[in-house]
Formats: sequence, C-alpha cells, structure tokens
Amino acid sequence: MISLPQGFSGLVANIGIKDDTDDFSVVVSDRPCAVAGVFTQSRFAGPSIAVSRRHVSDGVARGFVVISKNANVANGPEGLADAEEVVGGVAAALGVETEDLLIASTGVIGRRYPMDVIRNHLADMVNRSRPSTDATEMAGAIMTTDTFAKVATASFGPARIVGIAKGVGMIEPNMATMLAFIMTDADIDRAELDTRFRHSVERSFNSLSVDSDTSTSDTAIVLANGAAGDVDPDEFGRALDAVCLELTRMLATDGEGATTLIEVEVTEAVDDAQAKNVAKAILNSPLVKTAVFGRDPNWGRIAMAIGKVPDERILEDKVHIAIGDQELFPRRCSDADLDALSAYLAGERVEIHVSLGLGQASWRVYGCDLSYDYVRINAEYTT
Amino acid sequence: MISLPQGFSGLVANIGIKDDTDDFSVVVSDRPCAVAGVFTQSRFAGPSIAVSRRHVSDGVARGFVVISKNANVANGPEGLADAEEVVGGVAAALGVETEDLLIASTGVIGRRYPMDVIRNHLADMVNRSRPSTDATEMAGAIMTTDTFAKVATASFGPARIVGIAKGVGMIEPNMATMLAFIMTDADIDRAELDTRFRHSVERSFNSLSVDSDTSTSDTAIVLANGAAGDVDPDEFGRALDAVCLELTRMLATDGEGATTLIEVEVTEAVDDAQAKNVAKAILNSPLVKTAVFGRDPNWGRIAMAIGKVPDERILEDKVHIAIGDQELFPRRCSDADLDALSAYLAGERVEIHVSLGLGQASWRVYGCDLSYDYVRINAEYTT
Repeated sequence: MISLPQGFSGLVANIGIKDDTDDFSVVVSDRPCAVAGVFTQSRFAGPSIAVSRRHVSDGVARGFVVISKNANVANGPEGLADAEEVVGGVAAALGVETEDLLIASTGVIGRRYPMDVIRNHLADMVNRSRPSTDATEMAGAIMTTDTFAKVATASFGPARIVGIAKGVGMIEPNMATMLAFIMTDADIDRAELDTRFRHSVERSFNSLSVDSDTSTSDTAIVLANGAAGDVDPDEFGRALDAVCLELTRMLATDGEGATTLIEVEVTEAVDDAQAKNVAKAILNSPLVKTAVFGRDPNWGRIAMAIGKVPDERILEDKVHIAIGDQELFPRRCSDADLDALSAYLAGERVEIHVSLGLGQASWRVYGCDLSYDYVRINAEYTT
Repeated sequence: MISLPQGFSGLVANIGIKDDTDDFSVVVSDRPCAVAGVFTQSRFAGPSIAVSRRHVSDGVARGFVVISKNANVANGPEGLADAEEVVGGVAAALGVETEDLLIASTGVIGRRYPMDVIRNHLADMVNRSRPSTDATEMAGAIMTTDTFAKVATASFGPARIVGIAKGVGMIEPNMATMLAFIMTDADIDRAELDTRFRHSVERSFNSLSVDSDTSTSDTAIVLANGAAGDVDPDEFGRALDAVCLELTRMLATDGEGATTLIEVEVTEAVDDAQAKNVAKAILNSPLVKTAVFGRDPNWGRIAMAIGKVPDERILEDKVHIAIGDQELFPRRCSDADLDALSAYLAGERVEIHVSLGLGQASWRVYGCDLSYDYVRINAEYTT
C-alpha cells in the first residue's frame, strides 16, 4: 500500500452518481497547506474550475473533494450554485473553511449533479464514507473510465510526495491534465511551490496528448502541509518533476484503446516552442498513431507530420528521423532492419526521435496509438 | 459519360507502379491555357510540387501528368531529377514545351519511382496509352485508395467547367486538396483566373479535413484554354465555386472509413478566421467524429471542441449549438428529441450548427466521421 503523506487522510464513498463504483471522495490535511494549481484554459471550463481557481488564489488550502462520472459542465448558473453547495457542505462536514476546499469533477458534460442524492450524503458525510489513507484507493475513487489507478511517489530527506491522477480521453491539456492531485508533507514556501509546480507541469502533463481534445475539467493541484519539515527546494523540485512525469506516462499508457505508449522527442530545435510543436504534430497525427498500432514502420508519415507544421525555418535536408535506435531518414535502412522495426513497434513503448538540425532546444511528449478500441469506446459512450 | 471540355484530351495507362490499375495519366489541351495553381505548404513538399509551382508561375500551361501509387516525396535530389525526367519525357512525347507541363504524384512516401519502367513507357507513350476524353476515366486513373472517381461539372453560356479530384486520407489541405484538376474551355484572363480560383479554393478544398493530416502532395490546378470563347467573369466565378465545392463534398464523403459526411457551420463570428478555427476544431475532434459514428447526440463534445479553441473572445453564455434543426444548447431538448437526433445522425450527411453570438462572419467546413475502418485502413496500409 502507498500511504498518503503525513497529515493527509481521505474519505471515500459511492453515492450512486452513475453506478456502484466510488464516486465521491475527499482528501483533507490536518493542518493548512501551501497550495498551487493549474487549470484548463477551455472556454467551456466548468464551475469546479471556477471555484477551485478562486480558492487556490490565496495560496492556502486544506483539501479537495472529487465527484466522478459527472463533469458538471455547461450547466449555466445552476451548475455553479450546485458546485458551491457541494464545497460548502463538505467544508461544514469537515469543519474547515469553505475557501480552503477545492473541487474537481469529471464525466458527462451538460447534465446536472443529482443534488438530492448529494444533499442526503452531505447530511452525514463522515459516517457514510470509508476513511482511508491509501493513495491507490483514493486514485481509484476519482476514476471515470480509467482501467487502472494512477499513483506515483517519491521520497527525499524526511519528506514524501504522493501524486494521484485520472484521465484516458479528451486529453490534450493546455495548462494541466484531466485531474492530478499531488500531496506532500514537505514544508515549502507558497511562491516556491508555485514556481516548481509550473515547471513540472510544463514538461509533464502539458506534454501529454491522447486524442488532441482538451477537457473542460483539467485540474492539477499540489498541496504541501509541511508535516515533515524543511526540505531542499532543488531536491523537492526534482522529486516533483519525477512524480508528475511518472503520472503522465501512466495517463498516456492508459489512453483510450491504447496498446502502445508513444514518446516523441524532438532535438536540435531553434527553441522549446518549435520542438514542442513538431513533437505534438507527430504525436497527434492519426496516420502516425494508426501506423504504430499496425506495427508498420511507415516513417514517411512522420515526415508528413513534420512537414505540416507551419514553420518555414524547418528544412527537409536538415531533418533526421529515427524510430527507437533505427535511423530512417535521410539514411535509409535495409528491409531486414524494417522487419526488426515492426517487432519493436509491437512493444509496449515506442520512441520516435526527430532532429531538426537547427539549434539546441529539445522537447519530449507522451501519447499513445490509435486503435479500434478508441473508436469503440467513444462511439459507445452514452450521453 | 462526362466529357472533358472542348480541346482537352487524355492518355491513360497502367505501367505497373504498384498493381494493375491505371497509374500513369496525361491531360493535354490542343492550345495554350491560362493556368492557376495552389499547392501544399508542407515543409516536406515533394519534387512534383516544386516542378509544378515553377511551371505554373508564368500563367501559361498545356497540360499535366499524374503518377499514382507513389508520391515521390522525401527522395532527395534524386527524387527531383526523376520528376524532371518524367516531365521532360512526357512533354517530348506530346510535342509541347517542358515548361508548359505540370506534374502531380501521390502514394507512398520515401520510395523512388521505378524509373526503368517509366523510361520504357515514355519511349512510346502515345501508342502504349488509351486515348480518352472521359472525365470519369481520367478521375479513376489518378485514384490511390479512393473508392469512387470524383468528377464535378458546370455549364454556363457557351462554356463548361469539368473538375476531377482524388484523396481519402492525409487530408487537411493548407492551400489545396490532395489532387484536383479543373479544366474549362472558357476564355478567361490569367489574373482573373488566379483570383477567382483562390477564392473558390479557400471556401472549398481549404475547408476540408478528413483526418487533420496535411499531405506533402496537395495540388489544385485550373486550366482554361478559351476554346468556348469569352464568358462573364462573375458567372465563371460562381460556376468554379460550385465545381470546387462539389468535389470537396465528394472528397469528404469518401474520407477513409467514412460513413457520414459532416458539415460544420459556424455563424455570428467576429471574423472569417475565428469562424473557421471553431468549425475546424469541431470537425477534427476525434470525440465528435466518433460520437457521430456511434449515432450518439453527445453535444457536450461539441461544447468541449469549441472550448478548446484558444480565443478569449468566445463566451459560453453567447454560444448556441444545434445538430440538424435540433437546438441543444443553451435550450435543452427532450429525451424524445434526442432519440430523433440519433436517427438523424445515422444519415449520410450531418450538419452541426454553432452560433458564437459575437459578429457577422460565418464559415462552413467539410469532413467525416471516425470509424473502425479508418483505423483498419491506416493500420494495414503497407509501406
């Protein structure tokens, strides 16, 4: 069992939002936490985003509540009132300030919460919930269609970081991933926490795409309650990077219908933005994704995807393309090498390397292949 | 039979580029044509693009040669030499200037032409080809994996316009579609032709996306040989718009694995660019595309796709969403109406309407759903 960091504890329940799996969970710290959060930039962001963004703004929080299987998005002023009622009710049940509680919610869009069921639960929330300090159990409670619970952890000095995340589709985070909650007992300054977290998110959750569709509910939050005392900020930053990146790889691996984790690294770019643009164009190309699913070393599709980036600084005769360790362009490989590459593409993880030959910047992004099951899952998912 | 316009004739052959279907075709005019062309903006554009762009630049041409099943892309200086040799050989066989002949080529990327086979054909091209003035036969000869030949025609005054096109995947044209050739016997000024054609292309081929992947070979060319005499430019422009749009709808209908043509119209936008950006975001969303394939009136995914456009002028409370004639947001519909919508989504053509409530501009885009067959076709397509 991976336990939550010191001072954090959870409450889990099924209240029947959609089915009989856990759908209402709360994590609270026994003392105030420094907090930082990044949220979706969707123009249809839900009221959970509005409320959490407001409650994060003073840099202090005590915990969060997550409702799964209903996103509470595109529900107008009633949706916002519902979100505020949930946060107020949970805060009252826990005996904390409403302004110190965050909320996140994912699932179907455009349907209101079943408020009668929720009010009934809030009337005696603590007794109707299972107490838990098991991070895997908490990660399970926030899942919608995920196939496994996503937990990553790191220890350094006296402190630990534990992160949980969920999300399999509608994933190309702009500022964060679907939902990720990082908890630590490190004692870390609010401003320091915010800076370190934004750095971690940029190279992890913001470098993830399952299907190029950006959710209305993306939320990533870090809570530091200081129970383990002072830490070295650089050591903390590296541990935070590692936890965020491990969760990102888990999210990509569990992408809807995915059979293969795809990592695309672009090197020798003019700057980070160029490297990331090219990497995302390859990662999100349905033709590259289906080629990987078909175990087809069709590197011409990688050339196509590079070519479609509207950036006149890119020059075909400076580009190098490789899959795994196999160079493919401009130096061609033998048919036997192509056969070996098909076997490599059948693995659980595929790396695509592109060098632009222009500068020093590099970027790595994380995604997955496009399979029949992606179509099946999303054609069958009922409103 | 739809015949080519006056003065245009074709030569068709199978020379065995890949299989036993027609793969080498030529169309030539008996007199010089005014010509305009738009081409892919891919940074991996092939030598066919380089040669045709050069030969179009003086505004005069006689015809074009098309090789199908091999794109001749990413083949370095040898690929360019091959393309120039093909154009020179065809021009010699026809007795026209090399600079007046255009070339287009689609198929696998990164494999050179079988030049021995091509040289053998060029040595006696006219006798080894079937002569034809049948536009459908010419459209068939330029297909790669298309399931039907795409021809559109319009008549006005004494003149006709006949367009042929091909393309089913790797389709999000930036300046043109995969391949489209428009021929007319109208007598029209070069500059007028260029202006009219760019207008037509912007609202037709440039508003098309099957899979968001931009080809390295996109080419759209219009040839006007004047055999039918003077025409009214406005009448010509309207006819050209109609032909380009009809070809665009055919291309979307034949998108890889498509079961439904999807048209997205965005109205009341601030400007054309905003309308097109929002329309494309919806059209290219894999979650919207799979919902249509699954006949699921999941309008929340349309809200999501609007929301992911990075444009802060878009305001959720001004947006209206409808599918067909059914309003869905903000005014909700009944369960019975949703059932009726599922039946509508099972049709051959689905319209999605979004009003942004901000201004007067509107744009319509053309695409298709995402099915199991898209994955099958592209996972099985062999390099």
